[in-house]
Amino acid sequence: MPGDDVRFYPAERLREFSARAFEHLGVPPADAAQAADVLVASDLRGVDSHGVARLRPYLDLLAAGRINPRPNVRVVRDLPAAATVDGDNGLGLVVGPRANEVALDKAEAAGAAWVGVSNSNHFGMAGYYPLRALDRGLIGWAMTNSAPLVAPLWGAERVLGTNPIAVAFPAGEEPPVVIDFATSAAAYGKVEIAGRKGAPLPPGWGVDRDGNPATRPDQVIDGGALLPLGGTRDGGGHKGYGLAALVDILSGVLTGAGWGPFVPPFALRQGEPARAVGRGVGHAFGAARVDGFIDPSEFRRRVDDWVRTLRATRPAAGTPGVVIPGDPERLAEVERRVTGVPLLPAVVADLRDISARTGIPFD
Amino acid sequence: MPGDDVRFYPAERLREFSARAFEHLGVPPADAAQAADVLVASDLRGVDSHGVARLRPYLDLLAAGRINPRPNVRVVRDLPAAATVDGDNGLGLVVGPRANEVALDKAEAAGAAWVGVSNSNHFGMAGYYPLRALDRGLIGWAMTNSAPLVAPLWGAERVLGTNPIAVAFPAGEEPPVVIDFATSAAAYGKVEIAGRKGAPLPPGWGVDRDGNPATRPDQVIDGGALLPLGGTRDGGGHKGYGLAALVDILSGVLTGAGWGPFVPPFALRQGEPARAVGRGVGHAFGAARVDGFIDPSEFRRRVDDWVRTLRATRPAAGTPGVVIPGDPERLAEVERRVTGVPLLPAVVADLRDISARTGIPFD
Repeated sequence: MPGDDVRFYPAERLREFSARAFEHLGVPPADAAQAADVLVASDLRGVDSHGVARLRPYLDLLAAGRINPRPNVRVVRDLPAAATVDGDNGLGLVVGPRANEVALDKAEAAGAAWVGVSNSNHFGMAGYYPLRALDRGLIGWAMTNSAPLVAPLWGAERVLGTNPIAVAFPAGEEPPVVIDFATSAAAYGKVEIAGRKGAPLPPGWGVDRDGNPATRPDQVIDGGALLPLGGTRDGGGHKGYGLAALVDILSGVLTGAGWGPFVPPFALRQGEPARAVGRGVGHAFGAARVDGFIDPSEFRRRVDDWVRTLRATRPAAGTPGVVIPGDPERLAEVERRVTGVPLLPAVVADLRDISARTGIPFD
Repeated sequence: MPGDDVRFYPAERLREFSARAFEHLGVPPADAAQAADVLVASDLRGVDSHGVARLRPYLDLLAAGRINPRPNVRVVRDLPAAATVDGDNGLGLVVGPRANEVALDKAEAAGAAWVGVSNSNHFGMAGYYPLRALDRGLIGWAMTNSAPLVAPLWGAERVLGTNPIAVAFPAGEEPPVVIDFATSAAAYGKVEIAGRKGAPLPPGWGVDRDGNPATRPDQVIDGGALLPLGGTRDGGGHKGYGLAALVDILSGVLTGAGWGPFVPPFALRQGEPARAVGRGVGHAFGAARVDGFIDPSEFRRRVDDWVRTLRATRPAAGTPGVVIPGDPERLAEVERRVTGVPLLPAVVADLRDISARTGIPFD
């Protein structure tokens, strides 16, 4: 994170502050600690957009009664390798980990499992969940739908979320391979940053309100939309659209949650969706036992070999060379465990404001 | 398919010809019929690149002893919701359908299942497999690795395949949603077509032998590489690379098959991979029961609603508007069941040559 104006905070302090803030709004201590852990794991891994910078909208939605602080999270459908969890409109940061554990338990018993979740809310960084699978020697994956920001290819309005997917594979001597990405070409936050800088928009990031290619950030922000991964038809935008659709159907349509343009927003200032097609945000979690496929120690050796082979790819001229998925986040965590988490002034101001209003000390 | 020079053939005739050609090379009749069905399903759905246009390389590899015509396809690892199939170096068009059935059977019993496959070969159109899941009211998915053509982001050599993913969801009154795409920005065949036309290459499709952005098709063809979906870093090429990696690890590394640069090629003229890291091409198949998540009739209504909502997206200026994944293939099939399958002169010449060499009548 660039700039001299950031301040560094130990992860433990951010975790404790966040947990106390959730408790202040009625979240039971164990759930508050879990929610804080998801946020701060994101800050540690350098995914600043999903860390304590988001604490305020979670608290706002709790304070407004739009999120249930004490949900009765329960399994409503149950087969050996498939289940559905109703999150009772709880924090996604609480419902998600609970449902993910159901998927991990089922995968351990049956070899593989899928768990769908309805009636949840924003679940934080998607990569958090497959990392829990790694703790148990499993392969894990997670996805979620989210409030509409993305136009399908050849559309002119926001109909799909940035619908991320994350998958993690255990390795042996090498670090695990952790793949975690939104299915839009770029994040909305990046468009906003380009807007503040007055920079033009790279091709394929978005469209204006008529669906024409956006060349300026304000065209996307003022009634336009992001584009799916691939951008235009030539770039393969139909593929990114297919990927976003698959996440939306698995997470939302299949689980009984909201879907597409009707996924509830993650901000108090945005109203409820135009039509109630289901309950809340939807997620899907999955896991698989390695020994359903291959001897686990052989798999670890093979992943090591894969990682080393990919890393040894001849680098493209003028680039840092091939990066293994998960490396940037892992390296960020190594650094931030030493330096602390760098927070931008606006985030520090937000946390101080929360501190002033709740009496929970910060800083 | 454009051009006055195409000839139209009834699907049934192509199916019979292909089956007899496979039999001629020692494939048992039931397997030959299965293999032919995969090819012709592709032709019917307008995926010409994976239909009878590919019959010759399959036959060449059989004739050269590089594919086993009478494989002993067997389940080598078996858990309730996970299994691994050894394809015994058979035709992917035979091994794939067999392993996919294992996934469908297991999903019916356990609620969801994943089946990995090693020691296989090119399995045809990925979308063929989840369509079989639909026949049984299941959600289905399939993926495969393939011979290296794609450079990872910031790499300058071919290290990953175009590694496709396909997923299908049943609907009610609307047609099913069928998502089927390669994880490269564009198909290699499209680069070749641009080359024959002398057309420039759209940005983000490929790199030259030094990893610089390719602007001409020959730069990709002569030692360059395709790029993953997203193309450059700005376009989200790290996401497409992550997607290709995930397919490679699930299909290849996890199953005991070849992976990355060491996946065997699908052409006689190309030699064996530089290093033997596993056996053959790898696939992964999966399926899930809808009632593990939601009432199946409710799901069908919800998918219908999703399809109608997406289709009603306000269209981007100057475009045909939003297309539902699977629509183009479905409409091609409706048309081709009436008109027959259009084949280009080069494909007709290929099939006539096969006819001349085998004595199987064609045309």
